[in-house]
Amino acid sequence: MPKQVDHDVRRTAIAQALWRVAKVRGLERVSLREVAAEAGMSLGQLQHYFSSRQDLMRFAMEFIRRKNIERATERLAGVDDADHVARLRAIVMEMLPTDEESRVGSLLNIDFMLEAARNDELREHARQRMAALRGLLEGQIALAVQAGDVSPECDPRSEAAVLIALSDGLRSHFHLGTHTAAEVVSLMDRHLERLFAGSAAQKAR
Amino acid sequence: MPKQVDHDVRRTAIAQALWRVAKVRGLERVSLREVAAEAGMSLGQLQHYFSSRQDLMRFAMEFIRRKNIERATERLAGVDDADHVARLRAIVMEMLPTDEESRVGSLLNIDFMLEAARNDELREHARQRMAALRGLLEGQIALAVQAGDVSPECDPRSEAAVLIALSDGLRSHFHLGTHTAAEVVSLMDRHLERLFAGSAAQKAR
Repeated sequence: MPKQVDHDVRRTAIAQALWRVAKVRGLERVSLREVAAEAGMSLGQLQHYFSSRQDLMRFAMEFIRRKNIERATERLAGVDDADHVARLRAIVMEMLPTDEESRVGSLLNIDFMLEAARNDELREHARQRMAALRGLLEGQIALAVQAGDVSPECDPRSEAAVLIALSDGLRSHFHLGTHTAAEVVSLMDRHLERLFAGSAAQKAR
Repeated sequence: MPKQVDHDVRRTAIAQALWRVAKVRGLERVSLREVAAEAGMSLGQLQHYFSSRQDLMRFAMEFIRRKNIERATERLAGVDDADHVARLRAIVMEMLPTDEESRVGSLLNIDFMLEAARNDELREHARQRMAALRGLLEGQIALAVQAGDVSPECDPRSEAAVLIALSDGLRSHFHLGTHTAAEVVSLMDRHLERLFAGSAAQKAR
């Protein structure tokens, strides 16, 4: 195996080990030593791939993000390109803890947000990720406005921020056991319906 | 001082010490020993008031909740009893990190939610607190519906859950530095306006 590929494979295997350990105990309480043990290597070997806990955390979040993108891409593959409402819903639903994989991802994401709230470098990383997601949603809402599926009075940039905040909040509440996954989906659908209400398309229905 | 009062005063002083330490380092990383030092007592003395870290955490959350209630009560004192929209807004704004005190409170709240997501006893405590808040908002929205300030199509119980999730999400984003306090308030106001739009009162304006 070429050296760079081997390096990437090893890093991914370590991120997967982190995922398994953090799933049970939370990111905050995970030590590099435990992750190394889970990945079947010594601490020294792990440090060859990740020089610090922060370095590993950043990579793990990238790993989760790539998983999310892969899943969203799969979901979108089944949706008509011109159906902006369905496309927006597909992206938003991928942000909710609807199955085992997205639940672990979202729990780790909460951990990460917490670490980032007090760590400048991680915070910058989190902000960039959120800006990218906001841009994606904003573009999709703007297309829906153009198509008359969302009221022209709506500001796509603000609505994108509200969607992210609402899904983050619903995710936390799911993990607290306040809402079931079905309730989370239903509350988000109620919000989306209101976003689409008042549009030309809605009025014509 | 009567014994019970002294006990309560000491516990409150310890919760305030926890508040000061956690503000800087996060709840997760705070040890009982540090809190004892900040409160100017030995670990043994502190353990006389709180037998475990969990016991202290629960009390600290109660302490924050009482602060929130005091602040909300002050805000509501200046609002007309019959103005349901203004009353709802006053309660919701108290859930956002609009000043130094509410910022520390909300940061600790995020920490607490995280611990609660993996701890059954704390989770039950968090759920009860959220149920109480949801009930309060639900009642306020129901009054606004009755008064014609919110559309009768709106379901107060669901809207209350959406308001809590949205404010939790906006709070996290504030702490990540994605939004300023002013932006958080403006995004919430946009959501509230939509909630009030379509009502009889709105139409008459």
